[in-house]
Amino acid sequence: MTQVTGEHVNQVPETTIERLPVYLRCLHEAQAMRIPVISSVGIAQMSGGNAAQVRKDLSYLGEFGTRGIGYEVDSLAGHIAKALGLTQQRRVALVGLGRLGSALLSYGGFGDRGMTWVAVYDSDPDKVGTPAGGGLLVRGSAELAATLPELGPGIAVITTPANAAQEVADAIVAAGVRSILNFAPVTLEVPEHVTLRQVDLSVELQILSFHLAEGS
Amino acid sequence: MTQVTGEHVNQVPETTIERLPVYLRCLHEAQAMRIPVISSVGIAQMSGGNAAQVRKDLSYLGEFGTRGIGYEVDSLAGHIAKALGLTQQRRVALVGLGRLGSALLSYGGFGDRGMTWVAVYDSDPDKVGTPAGGGLLVRGSAELAATLPELGPGIAVITTPANAAQEVADAIVAAGVRSILNFAPVTLEVPEHVTLRQVDLSVELQILSFHLAEGS
Repeated sequence: MTQVTGEHVNQVPETTIERLPVYLRCLHEAQAMRIPVISSVGIAQMSGGNAAQVRKDLSYLGEFGTRGIGYEVDSLAGHIAKALGLTQQRRVALVGLGRLGSALLSYGGFGDRGMTWVAVYDSDPDKVGTPAGGGLLVRGSAELAATLPELGPGIAVITTPANAAQEVADAIVAAGVRSILNFAPVTLEVPEHVTLRQVDLSVELQILSFHLAEGS
Repeated sequence: MTQVTGEHVNQVPETTIERLPVYLRCLHEAQAMRIPVISSVGIAQMSGGNAAQVRKDLSYLGEFGTRGIGYEVDSLAGHIAKALGLTQQRRVALVGLGRLGSALLSYGGFGDRGMTWVAVYDSDPDKVGTPAGGGLLVRGSAELAATLPELGPGIAVITTPANAAQEVADAIVAAGVRSILNFAPVTLEVPEHVTLRQVDLSVELQILSFHLAEGS
């Protein structure tokens, strides 16, 4: 069994990284169904991919499948979680406590995956100082530059309106945060050392629309 | 210039379909920047993919790039929108008007892409009959089976709590809806003729976590 080393991890293609959380969800489902071993074909069926791609993706993490048998579900889930850094606790800040921000804070999927909310900011004075959930009080967005560095989140999530997002991103970057997840429907500019991911909630509806167009 | 035919569309791999909305977003950004022509390398840079993959994906829609020059941005955006069925109006129903459901209803990205909300359901009697946005009143979830068939949505979005989602999915399927987008953090079972997509809002945070693990 090969350990996941820094060297290995650096070689993983972005498209593989994007599929790892999907495989991990499938493995958690397999665990819930008490399935001890799963083949690449099984993972492909659950994840909507193909078996050769699954084998190739997982080969980047090391060689721990058994030919003709498959992968031990618990072991593989552990390897993926480790590669994704989910075995470490991640400190996450949220900026913009509107409907989407509130939905994300109350979404169950984050805590299970090692994510801890450490700060919530909003520009609305009526919200500042009120409970945001998880024992946090809402902080004013004007405080962001002064308070974010000491809170030290690894990741900041932007759920502000589109017109506020760039200014917020600039303040987040200035505070030393290296990873930003942007839900605001606008393209942000950040320095090269910052990893930015843009979420477009309409993508999945567009994929379904394709299948409807195909069938009609 | 080859037209997108039903035959072409049927051959498009699922992984390509999933990248089309991403390319379309990049083309919309190019349009906003008044860029008339874009190369596969340019699309790859904006979308975080690679140029050979971009060319292969777009080849499924027909041959409309010019070798050594690139793709006309407006024309390519039109082709992708057509392939995704976004030039047709899509009727979409929402079940579960909690924080996430409210956020999706108020999210700007849907209307631009030909999606129209035609019904909103919730099981909370206090919400039934109140305005849900877009001129719609909230309907009771108990009415779903009786009212959904005549409203005729092509797509239903589930944003209920996990423990209610399967029952809601069964009612949606019984009402004849063929496409379901599930945000509830639970695996749903649907008949084979129904297309189901599962959204996990924590996936993007996991991808960022990978990059943090890589850098640490």
